[in-house]
Amino acid sequence: MTRIACAQLAPVLGDRQANRELAAGAITAAAAQRAEVVVLPELITSGYMFQSTEEAATAAIGLEDPLLAEWCALAAAHDLVIVGGFCERDPADGGVYNSAALIDAAGVRAVYRKLHLWDAETLIFERGLKAPPVVDTRVGRVAVAICYDLEFPELTRSVALAGAQLLTVPTNWPLVPRPAGERPPEVVIAMAAARVNRMAVACADRLGSERGQEWTGGTTIVGADGWVAAETREAGVLIADVDLAAAANKRLTAHADAFGDRRPELYGAVAQLGAR
Amino acid sequence: MTRIACAQLAPVLGDRQANRELAAGAITAAAAQRAEVVVLPELITSGYMFQSTEEAATAAIGLEDPLLAEWCALAAAHDLVIVGGFCERDPADGGVYNSAALIDAAGVRAVYRKLHLWDAETLIFERGLKAPPVVDTRVGRVAVAICYDLEFPELTRSVALAGAQLLTVPTNWPLVPRPAGERPPEVVIAMAAARVNRMAVACADRLGSERGQEWTGGTTIVGADGWVAAETREAGVLIADVDLAAAANKRLTAHADAFGDRRPELYGAVAQLGAR
Repeated sequence: MTRIACAQLAPVLGDRQANRELAAGAITAAAAQRAEVVVLPELITSGYMFQSTEEAATAAIGLEDPLLAEWCALAAAHDLVIVGGFCERDPADGGVYNSAALIDAAGVRAVYRKLHLWDAETLIFERGLKAPPVVDTRVGRVAVAICYDLEFPELTRSVALAGAQLLTVPTNWPLVPRPAGERPPEVVIAMAAARVNRMAVACADRLGSERGQEWTGGTTIVGADGWVAAETREAGVLIADVDLAAAANKRLTAHADAFGDRRPELYGAVAQLGAR
Repeated sequence: MTRIACAQLAPVLGDRQANRELAAGAITAAAAQRAEVVVLPELITSGYMFQSTEEAATAAIGLEDPLLAEWCALAAAHDLVIVGGFCERDPADGGVYNSAALIDAAGVRAVYRKLHLWDAETLIFERGLKAPPVVDTRVGRVAVAICYDLEFPELTRSVALAGAQLLTVPTNWPLVPRPAGERPPEVVIAMAAARVNRMAVACADRLGSERGQEWTGGTTIVGADGWVAAETREAGVLIADVDLAAAANKRLTAHADAFGDRRPELYGAVAQLGAR
């Protein structure tokens, strides 16, 4: 079993120092609970509700920033895999991205720039131009997606087909209406993505409100069987022990295999009958 | 709003006459409740637990069978869209298929042969060779999938991209373990498929047990918003009024669109980092 931690936090918009301390404190708390993987929310370094690209650029950091060095030091000290969202500025072209880093004891293993920008993010950030990474780590193969990315089944399927046993999802889920007794819709989507791909999914969400935007606080860890291993609506570090070895096996029964039974040659060939 | 009926029934293995009466009774009951779409379970004409292809062939019917003519007559009499599973024998090659017909007042509009055969079905049936149909009907564009098909997000996405506003799913869900308080896993998958594709999903399941196999009885109608509109664990006709017009609109916010935001050029290009 692999111990996964998701930190549900409320960053302070634009306050890099406070947010750096918040993230480091959560990583340290997770390590104290013997976590092996720590997932931090989307844009945990900066907050979310920017009103302009210029404002986001002021809060953004480059890969040389001490914050990433701090995450690397914590990963090395505790032998952790850390995945955290950050507001990135590319020093070459000045572009501002909604990014996430995957860091382990060896350092920064991958930086991912969000492919699917949600709503007004399109006015603030540049879109990523590269598919999500799937990284070999000491706990197995770990993929990274950010928030709205999760709502694209092509993306979750593609990382699973590339061998991801765990999909980490730094997220900021805006609070949306849901029927009484239901989980957040994004959690239902995570559960289904886990189940059909036999891949664990760990979503670290944020809490609180920011410039009038309420957040869901929907942090949830889903096992490779599609069932919720742990969920919380409170601030802090959520822990679950998840069987990532199971996620490497796609066989369902003696004659059924979640991947082997695919018919990729036919998915693009839907027959449309009748005039539109 | 469109009134959708899903019939949750317990067919008798191999008893074509009893099953024909069961299906016709359910269609008539749905029409009496002013349903516009009626979904019947997978293999409702035959039952499921065949021990050989020969046994299935004995229970199978061709497209000329009076049962399909009866469904056509009922569709015409009540102006219904009927989707029902049946055990099909191809008169040309003798192949036996796990199929579903989509029928409306104009007659048989499409016959679909299950693409993803579940477990021991692979020992009994031939696999379908054509993608699922998406059919223009008086209630909008309706797609057909069967049971395990639903667990392939490529399939649900592909029919949605082809304009399906309603995915009908004749099914026989074998009962599998689930945590207390949870819906059947297939329903979670249906909810997510509905939500990410903004497409209603109507699953007609079966009840009871057959040769030692217990069934879930998980009949559920999901709206295009991804929330359960109606669900039952009892025998009979489940009814829900669903907004299929909403399913034609994939816009989520001023700047977000469930289909327009896709990045199909990148889904096949996952970066795998590190030695395997």
